[in-house]
Amino acid sequence: MLVYLLGMLGTAVFAITGVLAIRRQGVDVFGAVVLGVVTALGGGTVRDLILDVPIFWIVDFNSIWVASGAALLSFFLAQHLHSTRQLLLYLDGFGAALFGVLATEKVLALGHGAGLAVMMGVWTSIGGGIARDVLASRTNLLMSTEIYATPILVGCTCYVLLRGQLDTATLSIFAVLLIFSFRALAIARGLKMPHWLSTHRERS
Amino acid sequence: MLVYLLGMLGTAVFAITGVLAIRRQGVDVFGAVVLGVVTALGGGTVRDLILDVPIFWIVDFNSIWVASGAALLSFFLAQHLHSTRQLLLYLDGFGAALFGVLATEKVLALGHGAGLAVMMGVWTSIGGGIARDVLASRTNLLMSTEIYATPILVGCTCYVLLRGQLDTATLSIFAVLLIFSFRALAIARGLKMPHWLSTHRERS
Amino acid sequence: MLVYLLGMLGTAVFAITGVLAIRRQGVDVFGAVVLGVVTALGGGTVRDLILDVPIFWIVDFNSIWVASGAALLSFFLAQHLHSTRQLLLYLDGFGAALFGVLATEKVLALGHGAGLAVMMGVWTSIGGGIARDVLASRTNLLMSTEIYATPILVGCTCYVLLRGQLDTATLSIFAVLLIFSFRALAIARGLKMPHWLSTHRERS
Repeated sequence: MLVYLLGMLGTAVFAITGVLAIRRQGVDVFGAVVLGVVTALGGGTVRDLILDVPIFWIVDFNSIWVASGAALLSFFLAQHLHSTRQLLLYLDGFGAALFGVLATEKVLALGHGAGLAVMMGVWTSIGGGIARDVLASRTNLLMSTEIYATPILVGCTCYVLLRGQLDTATLSIFAVLLIFSFRALAIARGLKMPHWLSTHRERS
Repeated sequence: MLVYLLGMLGTAVFAITGVLAIRRQGVDVFGAVVLGVVTALGGGTVRDLILDVPIFWIVDFNSIWVASGAALLSFFLAQHLHSTRQLLLYLDGFGAALFGVLATEKVLALGHGAGLAVMMGVWTSIGGGIARDVLASRTNLLMSTEIYATPILVGCTCYVLLRGQLDTATLSIFAVLLIFSFRALAIARGLKMPHWLSTHRERS
Repeated sequence: MLVYLLGMLGTAVFAITGVLAIRRQGVDVFGAVVLGVVTALGGGTVRDLILDVPIFWIVDFNSIWVASGAALLSFFLAQHLHSTRQLLLYLDGFGAALFGVLATEKVLALGHGAGLAVMMGVWTSIGGGIARDVLASRTNLLMSTEIYATPILVGCTCYVLLRGQLDTATLSIFAVLLIFSFRALAIARGLKMPHWLSTHRERS
């Protein structure tokens, strides 16, 4: 139950930050809501398609209502949300941590291997934002050197390595906190990937 | 049977307008045909993947032949079609209305809820054009304030609300005409979304 | 067994060329590996989703390890690979030929028709590169007049036409060599699509 509510909170946060990300580009309310919903649910949708399980929001349509409601709210209250931008960045980091760990557990529970579980955990967290950026012609995080995916990759890897040695609840909390602390540090300090792990745009 | 033929007409129109939309960007006949087919069949493909039913054009490959034939014709006859651009815009509006209503009925017939039916109705109409624009690096309709999706959203919502009270044939014709009239008005008058329902591009 | 090893070689080559294609745009090692893997496995993933068969890299996760290992290597050794760029272009052509023919055979073996087999053969070869270019905001091959897809289209069509008249092994080798020779000629001579089969970018 708590997991369900946290998942919905993560969905709402992703939809809100999704709308804030694109609203300066000139959209109408329809486009904004679609892009907010894509941000919140896009990663998990592709995950479920690939795993060949029923799409989670077809099983429980509440995800769509929460995401589109939050996106709608975000569209009309954007001026007021602007001042909470920093808070939303941290909430987004928390949502990403949660989505990653929940997805990793889901894939393992389906009987798949550790590699696929980590891969799908990371994808569920970042896929929605990437899909939104592709639809909105924005530079997506694959083409940046921001530290966003690395904490999720580290946290989900720890999760699969320690699973069985700790009970699922403790392990989940540990992994979420690990990812969130790492990401919060990156936000607070403006950390970028080190030079030897990145390339730089060259004139061609 | 009439529904089948109308569906094929809609497919052909979408493929033709799809090719006309991108041919000024420098493509070869292969790219043009692929993008025409994506415009015509892309929305329904994603819909069927998400609903986990067999893709409609795998069940009946004629859709592919019609779409690629129309795209090929459109590539070679583009000069002549140019003068019929206005007509094609209306035909495209009619195709969108038809695709939306047929998809809404398909989802309801599969036993899904009204929310999903409306969502998939709208998506089937607009998804192909969005996929084409992403592939062709064009601004897609989610990032514009043109009135394209709103009529479909209104029409599909009316469809699910009135279903059961009218017989399917009458209701379908009513919904298609409603969407088409609304869209035709938007084309004829160059209507845009009202100011309070849209944001404007800002310098960042 | 040989087919398996050749498939893995093709996967590695696609991952390497995928990373080389985007590394000048400013990415970190995470983005580079994701884009390399997408280049190598993206086409086949969509193919399997559409055919509704288990995704090949979920059945055999080695594809992921080979693709991500090759992408990682490519990221760190890019300076040295630069001098072998011409060789990689030919290897990429060979990989595309192999992917196309193997996919065509896979679709026919599933009992589908010739049209779908050719379509999926071509898509498996070109889909990964297109997905990478969309994610990296690059112009993809649908919007160019390079001769890349045409040889695959011709070779896969020959494959379905001659199947049954030759044994599968001989036919596969013939089709791969046909595609590769055609593509190699296009690389060596810098061939473009003829004027009457392409349009040119116009100022709008």
